[in-house]
Amino acid sequence: MKSIVSSKYLACLVGSIILNLLFIINIYVGGQWKLSWSSRAAIEAETVAAIYCSGHGRAYLDGLVVDGNKPVCDCNTCFTGPDCSQFIPHCTANADGYLRIVSPCLSSFFAQRSLDPEYLTARTLPSDQLRDPPVRIRGRALEGPVYAWLSGDPLFLEPFWMQHLASSALVVAGWHQMSYTYGGKSFCSEELAKVVRKVHASVGNAVTQNRFIIFGAGSTQVLSAAVFALSPENTSSPAKVVTSVPYYPVDKQQTQYFSSQKFKYEGDAYRWKNRSDCSSTNMIEIVTSPNNPDGQLKKAIFHGPNVKTIYDHAYYWPHFTPIPAPSDEDVMVFTLSKLTGHAGTRLGWAVIKDETVFNRMMIHMQMNSMGVSKDAQLRAFKLLNVVLEEGTGIFDFAYQTMKSRWERFVQTVSLSNRFSLQENNPQYCTFYNKVRQLSPAYAWLKCEREEDKDCYAILEAANIIGRQGNLFGAEDGYVRLSLVRTQDDFDIFIERLHKLITEEDGDKTM
Amino acid sequence: MKSIVSSKYLACLVGSIILNLLFIINIYVGGQWKLSWSSRAAIEAETVAAIYCSGHGRAYLDGLVVDGNKPVCDCNTCFTGPDCSQFIPHCTANADGYLRIVSPCLSSFFAQRSLDPEYLTARTLPSDQLRDPPVRIRGRALEGPVYAWLSGDPLFLEPFWMQHLASSALVVAGWHQMSYTYGGKSFCSEELAKVVRKVHASVGNAVTQNRFIIFGAGSTQVLSAAVFALSPENTSSPAKVVTSVPYYPVDKQQTQYFSSQKFKYEGDAYRWKNRSDCSSTNMIEIVTSPNNPDGQLKKAIFHGPNVKTIYDHAYYWPHFTPIPAPSDEDVMVFTLSKLTGHAGTRLGWAVIKDETVFNRMMIHMQMNSMGVSKDAQLRAFKLLNVVLEEGTGIFDFAYQTMKSRWERFVQTVSLSNRFSLQENNPQYCTFYNKVRQLSPAYAWLKCEREEDKDCYAILEAANIIGRQGNLFGAEDGYVRLSLVRTQDDFDIFIERLHKLITEEDGDKTM
Repeated sequence: MKSIVSSKYLACLVGSIILNLLFIINIYVGGQWKLSWSSRAAIEAETVAAIYCSGHGRAYLDGLVVDGNKPVCDCNTCFTGPDCSQFIPHCTANADGYLRIVSPCLSSFFAQRSLDPEYLTARTLPSDQLRDPPVRIRGRALEGPVYAWLSGDPLFLEPFWMQHLASSALVVAGWHQMSYTYGGKSFCSEELAKVVRKVHASVGNAVTQNRFIIFGAGSTQVLSAAVFALSPENTSSPAKVVTSVPYYPVDKQQTQYFSSQKFKYEGDAYRWKNRSDCSSTNMIEIVTSPNNPDGQLKKAIFHGPNVKTIYDHAYYWPHFTPIPAPSDEDVMVFTLSKLTGHAGTRLGWAVIKDETVFNRMMIHMQMNSMGVSKDAQLRAFKLLNVVLEEGTGIFDFAYQTMKSRWERFVQTVSLSNRFSLQENNPQYCTFYNKVRQLSPAYAWLKCEREEDKDCYAILEAANIIGRQGNLFGAEDGYVRLSLVRTQDDFDIFIERLHKLITEEDGDKTM
Repeated sequence: MKSIVSSKYLACLVGSIILNLLFIINIYVGGQWKLSWSSRAAIEAETVAAIYCSGHGRAYLDGLVVDGNKPVCDCNTCFTGPDCSQFIPHCTANADGYLRIVSPCLSSFFAQRSLDPEYLTARTLPSDQLRDPPVRIRGRALEGPVYAWLSGDPLFLEPFWMQHLASSALVVAGWHQMSYTYGGKSFCSEELAKVVRKVHASVGNAVTQNRFIIFGAGSTQVLSAAVFALSPENTSSPAKVVTSVPYYPVDKQQTQYFSSQKFKYEGDAYRWKNRSDCSSTNMIEIVTSPNNPDGQLKKAIFHGPNVKTIYDHAYYWPHFTPIPAPSDEDVMVFTLSKLTGHAGTRLGWAVIKDETVFNRMMIHMQMNSMGVSKDAQLRAFKLLNVVLEEGTGIFDFAYQTMKSRWERFVQTVSLSNRFSLQENNPQYCTFYNKVRQLSPAYAWLKCEREEDKDCYAILEAANIIGRQGNLFGAEDGYVRLSLVRTQDDFDIFIERLHKLITEEDGDKTM
């Protein structure tokens, strides 16, 4: 009997020892158990990422800390509360880029009165000046400086990254890339340039062989660098910078802001088309294609020896448009923001044919900001590697999301005769090998009724913030509405729009 | 007998089971064993960081991949080989900011001829133009565009971060901070601003209470934003931007590059001091204090209702200078680069008294680059938190390093009558509560002999790259030498300098 007991003990002991050995092997040989210096940061990041925000927000490592040391949830528009679970009933649907108060005085004004900034409606910037536009809270005008964010916040891609947590995470050592340059050669990462070339090759949207690639702080800085680089150096008359209506407002505002003896913004390209005094003038045309606001694939209006053209291809991805052919222009500008959704990383690039233009753009980056953040370049490197690893993954996700949003939007608008939309002719897409339509980043809505001259005001009255047509050089019968924001923003926007349309006179459903 | 055996088994079994339980507790309750999405990235980062580079280089996650998938060592100047263990015997000591070829054509020129770019000596930019300076390889001139990096690469702080691996590591989720803004309010992180205020308070180098803080892509972009913001909006005569000799060359080059109807660079401040036509002109004076190149604490030359002053306090840290009192100027500019050594992150800030100036600088950041990289802001947030956690740690490390470098340098120079150095009068430092001298980032060397008019050439002949005095508005009898680079760079520089001095005629040691 004892012998049986002791042999049972022995068996248990052997089993237990084997288990211990397995644990030991795991700790010293297995994968994650070997971590040393990164584990504290990893635990910290995972702890913050695990903070529950009801699916209507997220907590960030560097997020707002109200009291204590733990960041709080950063809630989507129209949601509030410690875990973002409370819906703000009459909140304004934001179908624009973020626009909010920058002045700390005004921020404290809101804080003192316990007003949620979401209740704020503010007009975006007057197109010709960066002066204080009127800020109103429920119709009451406020004084103080305010300005608008002039681009779409492409958070529709956030769920893709939430689904690719392990592959897209990034660990950075404290001593990582402290120098201004990469190996003393350049402030642009060669490895990032390689990945960018591979992404273009896999999508087929741009020719990058034998081209130079330069990085900048978003396409905003890259576009400005291109304008400086393409302007003549020694001239009595500045180059005329033009864009065709409807144009991307930043091109105009930025060019006006930096205008000098080298270049000057001269408005709508069509205005200059047949003027004889242009044949000898240096012209720089910025062609946004697909266009912001209307998503159309645009071509340059000007050609000739005195003409330089910059193609802003920020939206030339299968997310938003059919890709008829790889673009092969002299200067093509892209941005991480509209490819992966990482607007905050500020990482844009240009693909450039001419070496002198490339060198001049490099000088611009040096003069402007002594290069571009290596942290931004590292982040882009990581994210674009995931894009490549996933094959058509991100494009399928983005296209399906934008297509279904567009269809839901069109369906809502079609309930009424009051509004019309931009053209959407099918084209052959070489990426998907099929004929498809636009699934645009923005809707370019027109108010059709005679009395609806201020289309922005019509939407504003229905608690929807768009962007006025005049900012794009068009009439105020037009409004641009962003379709790239969070799903929450889009849902609330569609709900408000549906309410506006179904409650109106002449509703087709009645 | 059996009973003893079986009770021994039992004891072993109990012990083994307890061990099992400890392992299980560790796995399910203990820290790092809970990691999920971050572990792949953590292993990847630790693997690359562990690549052996002989202490003369380091491998980076986004480092150059030659063949295969593993990044190779990025070697310090004058070291080469797969593990950076080979010293390049006659290589040039770099006591300047990095200066190297940007043109890919020239890069391939070197590659084709298997020339190490380290052998290259190139003059920095002519001060008045950004044209191609002559590039020479061992005296032979080459054609093509080349330009110099115009700032010191403060890698002397890298060992501090190597010693603080766990606290300074950063883990970033793929979905982290995708939006342009923080909570739709601003593109500047409030949490980062809080940490910046705490660092200034702990050092006592700047008053930040009731001041606005703005971030930009390095002090380079912030300085430019300040010049734009302080220029009058509607005026027929542009504001005169001045700096006093010897001045930081980037201020001149950047102001010239962006000059417009709003402002114009007008050279040395002393030139304008007693001119009556200045009393009614708008003046903007940039005061670099401590000064680059000579480390002196400078004061503004101009005062009055038409004068705006920008204090560039990049070097106003105990690393480099006694801190007599907290600075309390209207616009004060700082940079992460010279505080933590992370030049590549491109993160600078301004502390601003006036709200209108702050708002105009915000508009500049928006027009220029639609804000500042959130990845750069996150990195700064992490690093500055370590600075705070470590008390006086980073300052002690930096001060001791710079002090011992300065002493070694002075000792070497004092072997000869041929050179002289900047003044270094002791001052009371409120941070260390003692009287101390400068431990400057740069030596401002003067060649004293009549025949040594081109001091740069004297050093160049001895295989030392400095920066010519004329770039700083001074004579070419002066050269700026960087003391903030890697220990390798500094050691080689001192060795070359020692050789130059001891081999010369009239050597005092003989």
